[in-house]
Amino acid sequence: MKVGLGANGRDMRAVWFENGEVRMIDQRNLPHDPMIVNLKDHGEVALSIYSMTTRGAPSIGAAAAYGMCLAALNGHDLDDAARTLTAARPTAYDLFYAVDYMCAELKRGTEPIAAADSYAQMIVDKCIKIGEYGSALIKNGDNIMTHCNAGALATVDHGTAIAPIRKAWADGKKMFVYVSETRPRLQGMQLTAWELLQEGIPHAIIADGASGHFMRKDVNIIITGADRIAANGDFANKIGTYEKAVVAKELNIPFYVAAPMSTFDFGTEHGGNIPIEERPEEEITMIGGRRIAPIGSKALNPSFDVTPAKYVTGFITENGILGPAEIHKMR
Amino acid sequence: MKVGLGANGRDMRAVWFENGEVRMIDQRNLPHDPMIVNLKDHGEVALSIYSMTTRGAPSIGAAAAYGMCLAALNGHDLDDAARTLTAARPTAYDLFYAVDYMCAELKRGTEPIAAADSYAQMIVDKCIKIGEYGSALIKNGDNIMTHCNAGALATVDHGTAIAPIRKAWADGKKMFVYVSETRPRLQGMQLTAWELLQEGIPHAIIADGASGHFMRKDVNIIITGADRIAANGDFANKIGTYEKAVVAKELNIPFYVAAPMSTFDFGTEHGGNIPIEERPEEEITMIGGRRIAPIGSKALNPSFDVTPAKYVTGFITENGILGPAEIHKMR
Repeated sequence: MKVGLGANGRDMRAVWFENGEVRMIDQRNLPHDPMIVNLKDHGEVALSIYSMTTRGAPSIGAAAAYGMCLAALNGHDLDDAARTLTAARPTAYDLFYAVDYMCAELKRGTEPIAAADSYAQMIVDKCIKIGEYGSALIKNGDNIMTHCNAGALATVDHGTAIAPIRKAWADGKKMFVYVSETRPRLQGMQLTAWELLQEGIPHAIIADGASGHFMRKDVNIIITGADRIAANGDFANKIGTYEKAVVAKELNIPFYVAAPMSTFDFGTEHGGNIPIEERPEEEITMIGGRRIAPIGSKALNPSFDVTPAKYVTGFITENGILGPAEIHKMR
Repeated sequence: MKVGLGANGRDMRAVWFENGEVRMIDQRNLPHDPMIVNLKDHGEVALSIYSMTTRGAPSIGAAAAYGMCLAALNGHDLDDAARTLTAARPTAYDLFYAVDYMCAELKRGTEPIAAADSYAQMIVDKCIKIGEYGSALIKNGDNIMTHCNAGALATVDHGTAIAPIRKAWADGKKMFVYVSETRPRLQGMQLTAWELLQEGIPHAIIADGASGHFMRKDVNIIITGADRIAANGDFANKIGTYEKAVVAKELNIPFYVAAPMSTFDFGTEHGGNIPIEERPEEEITMIGGRRIAPIGSKALNPSFDVTPAKYVTGFITENGILGPAEIHKMR
């Protein structure tokens, strides 16, 4: 992705390997001050995942792959490293997929950096394919809604939900993107809007609660990412996705989920079995180190919700667009 | 309402008249530091309404009544004062109702303070009745969801949506209240949670986008306020209400709107004719004077949305509970 506006833009990925270290854009510092962090062992990588220095299921997967790479280079026990890394964000299926991939590659003797790099490149290639398939769904002049960040930052590069938008824009289609801010951590406002700004794509940030209002007004299509998709098509994504999907169905607005096949978890039969991460209540009750909630009031902070398959028009994958009833074919 | 926890609590209203001035709780300072502001003319009252020093349709109505009272006492032109006050928040129908009420009372020679006091007392009496009718809908052990603030702060005292909750709690019913934080201005987190805390009612703050997740989990009933109810039962309320109503219908959760009859605007046939106030985008892009959105990204900030009547189980009024199809009888 391009970091920096206009001619000052520099191409970089969300996470990569350089000079014996894992490097990543510190996404907690955006949108104002893109900083790079350098990580020397898999424990630091696990912490970077837990603390959301990097986030988004595919980027988390790539970070974990590089974490396994560090563990191998540093001579650490790979099973230990795998446990440490997968515990960091238990909802993200890509995390498990990446760790399994690396264990298999390392076992068969693939050089660790080459194995992790090829995992990251695989993600980027899939995102490009998702962009190609998904952009066909976007008509010239469409108003598009997305939620949270399923852009380049979340997926090493290009994005899942944002890839079709970028591709349609690159193809010359006019569009406007509604970005729901995504409380409590504001990934929509601070990451997706920032990415769209880098690309020059017209957009506006809205409060999460305003999504229904704008859907009624003029939204033509909704595209979100997913953190895990169960075998029956139920999927977990950032909290706030479920109600958008319900309202979209009510208003007959097409609702698409963009995700690589690695996000499909055929071992989980339905959404009720997807573990939902509960994050600290301070993400809601504090802002910038200052308490904004009454002292004495508690908050509940589930990071994800589960949307039943019946609300999904289609899944945009690197293998094409699948209806919920077609997923089992990919098993 | 009681301000201050436990034995330190002091009874006060959201807005009142004392020593020739209008006094109100500065709701922008809550939840940490309840402060009282004193207003000397109707222009200051209009500004207090625009700036949301006081907010909530019934409290806005009472403030406007006291504003008209000041205009009369200060010998200002009443038509001018009426125009200034009604321009402050055009979605709130109570504002127009209160100004009309005061014009009629002043014309017939009622003493200005007595007229405004009786308007405010009328609101409080209605809220008490709404609490009595509405509390019958709450079962022992219910999980209740509300949005924004339709409590004592919004209604001079007792509240509309919160009145049934307070009455059911006073009657000894156990309950748990989900308070959606209500971005961008956080009236749910900072006002409703604060009020529930004063009353000792168990509750948790949630992100607006988590409403659907908790509705699917265990919400038994939803009660919100309204800023304006059209003749056909469509109603305007804080942005975020519409999508809660749609999800509630999908999940067969009863969705009630608590409002005095003064919120019904029989001159507006349907929700499409209710003007929707657009507030400054900085309410979304800034927090505590600090910009949190990317510089260059715009925000859209409609303060209200319109929910069609078909999503409403019933309107809880001071005259009892009405189904959407029964509203026309009250015309």
